[in-house]
Amino acid sequence: VTGSFHAIIPAGGSGTRLWPLSRAERPKFLLDVTGSGRSLVQLTWDRLVPLTGPDGITLVCGQAHESAIREQLPDLTHLIAEPSPRDSMPAIGLAAALIVRRDRDAVIGSFAADHLIDDVPKFHAAVDQAITAAREGLIATIGIKPEGPSSAFGYIESGEKLTSGALAVSRFVEKPDTATAQQYLDHGGFFWNAGMFVTRADVILRHLGRLQPTLHEHLTAIAQAWDSPARASVLAEHWPATTKIAIDHALAEPVSLEGGMAVVPGDFGWSDIGDYLALSEISEPDPDCVFVDADGLVTGDGGQFVAVLGIDDAVVVRTKDAILVTTKARAQDVKQVVATLKSTARTDLL
Amino acid sequence: VTGSFHAIIPAGGSGTRLWPLSRAERPKFLLDVTGSGRSLVQLTWDRLVPLTGPDGITLVCGQAHESAIREQLPDLTHLIAEPSPRDSMPAIGLAAALIVRRDRDAVIGSFAADHLIDDVPKFHAAVDQAITAAREGLIATIGIKPEGPSSAFGYIESGEKLTSGALAVSRFVEKPDTATAQQYLDHGGFFWNAGMFVTRADVILRHLGRLQPTLHEHLTAIAQAWDSPARASVLAEHWPATTKIAIDHALAEPVSLEGGMAVVPGDFGWSDIGDYLALSEISEPDPDCVFVDADGLVTGDGGQFVAVLGIDDAVVVRTKDAILVTTKARAQDVKQVVATLKSTARTDLL
Repeated sequence: VTGSFHAIIPAGGSGTRLWPLSRAERPKFLLDVTGSGRSLVQLTWDRLVPLTGPDGITLVCGQAHESAIREQLPDLTHLIAEPSPRDSMPAIGLAAALIVRRDRDAVIGSFAADHLIDDVPKFHAAVDQAITAAREGLIATIGIKPEGPSSAFGYIESGEKLTSGALAVSRFVEKPDTATAQQYLDHGGFFWNAGMFVTRADVILRHLGRLQPTLHEHLTAIAQAWDSPARASVLAEHWPATTKIAIDHALAEPVSLEGGMAVVPGDFGWSDIGDYLALSEISEPDPDCVFVDADGLVTGDGGQFVAVLGIDDAVVVRTKDAILVTTKARAQDVKQVVATLKSTARTDLL
Repeated sequence: VTGSFHAIIPAGGSGTRLWPLSRAERPKFLLDVTGSGRSLVQLTWDRLVPLTGPDGITLVCGQAHESAIREQLPDLTHLIAEPSPRDSMPAIGLAAALIVRRDRDAVIGSFAADHLIDDVPKFHAAVDQAITAAREGLIATIGIKPEGPSSAFGYIESGEKLTSGALAVSRFVEKPDTATAQQYLDHGGFFWNAGMFVTRADVILRHLGRLQPTLHEHLTAIAQAWDSPARASVLAEHWPATTKIAIDHALAEPVSLEGGMAVVPGDFGWSDIGDYLALSEISEPDPDCVFVDADGLVTGDGGQFVAVLGIDDAVVVRTKDAILVTTKARAQDVKQVVATLKSTARTDLL
């Protein structure tokens, strides 16, 4: 159907702050971190497919994860396997360029593969509102109503109300310190940037051609060869030349300053499960542990019983081959452990 | 040889402060906690057998551990399997009563099964000096020169020098607080009570008959039936009736007040490996771990790599079925974890 809604799932990033649960070969989006029986990318699929149908979802992942994705999402028809990671703009841009060839009036929505949403009907309603704004030619984002002065997210400042019902975006701001985040909360009208972008495919590609012309050229070349025998060779030639850049920097920031972006407030229980502190907030208690003068998070599938004594806000993650012991206060620094392992001989654990 | 030296190894106690390394079925003395390839009871055997020969060692353990002991100590000939734990006095008293029947002039020395000694020649020299004092009719103990104001041990206060070269014991004191322990160190002449007692068998049994006559009667009855077909039935009748009491309270304290005890200073690198703090002081670093903004002890044979982030003096112990996470400051409280497991459904982990 022309003018349909198409979802793009960029499944990049390994989630190093969830090591040892997440590994290079088994990144966060492939994991059932909630214990629901479905991985994060499967849950993402589950909540998008009612909006798009199976044929309306395009997933972009690294070549190393293609087979795992195909196993977890047997109904996925549009999979783009990146020869190398080039950040989110090339991934989303190529998906948009391929979708627009099938449906010139397509509206696309890009949603991370590894986020969690509580209230799916509310999420669908927000997407519908974003689609309305997108049909008017804007790039719409869904901004998360902040639950606190988090320094872990970028913020979106909203402006006046638009005819679509969405709000204009005044500006995007990078991750602030906690004091600044508190000012945003006190001020009101600020939202967390969850990386959800909804736009007409032709609109995003026109912005791309204007703001990142070289990148646009490479993506166009790849898209033109996609359904031909030349796909592999053209991809091999052009992909490494694409600009490595996030969609936030390539499009969202400059377009917002031109008044071309809208934000739809989202209040549906969202988490990026960015670290073990975030995971602790959405996890059921592990049945195989005991805390004595202690509390915190015990997780992982190592099979062992865990006893924690005398440590508050402890984080203990046991897997078959590795155990992490830290505290919630240091949850954001787990990537330092991964960096240390990278610099040692234990790259088998990455 | 009459008047020989005989060693008694009371192998009781499960070492709950070393859970999950030590278990009810696999107590501390059966474990190779040093990574030497020999368990603590094997190391105890190794340093006693040069003084006694294999036939001069009597080991007392619970019936549950008899087969493991026989496996670890194939040359052990005198094993007493207790039907139930009655603390150290019945165990040592029965061993003494059995030894004196084979060698009426025997000198016996009792040494814990799960302590560690660095300098074995120095230990042998201290035992020799204790034997000299014992032959004069005293109960001699080897007191450990304190390495600090520990509150984990009882103390022995020494008095005047005796003809044997040992010092008289003024008194035994129970585990003091750290401030009192510091006063002992400042004062000098105080030693840690490591539970090493050297005495003529007839002397200890005479004291026992005088101070704990009922206990003495039961042990005498058992000893008389030991080498007869009635052993099992007599043991079953009399053992449960023995007074449950430690040798410190039954004999060492009252006899010291009568001037009947001597102490030989020991300075041979001693540890009771009483908790993970003590274990951390004698352990080689585990090769399969990394500390990031952290330090402490990682041990156990769970096979997993351990990463510790942002916790000082951490203690992480991984075994096949259980993981303990605590700090050195709370090492003495690991028994609380064991108590908690006892009160829950996880008695399989004890």
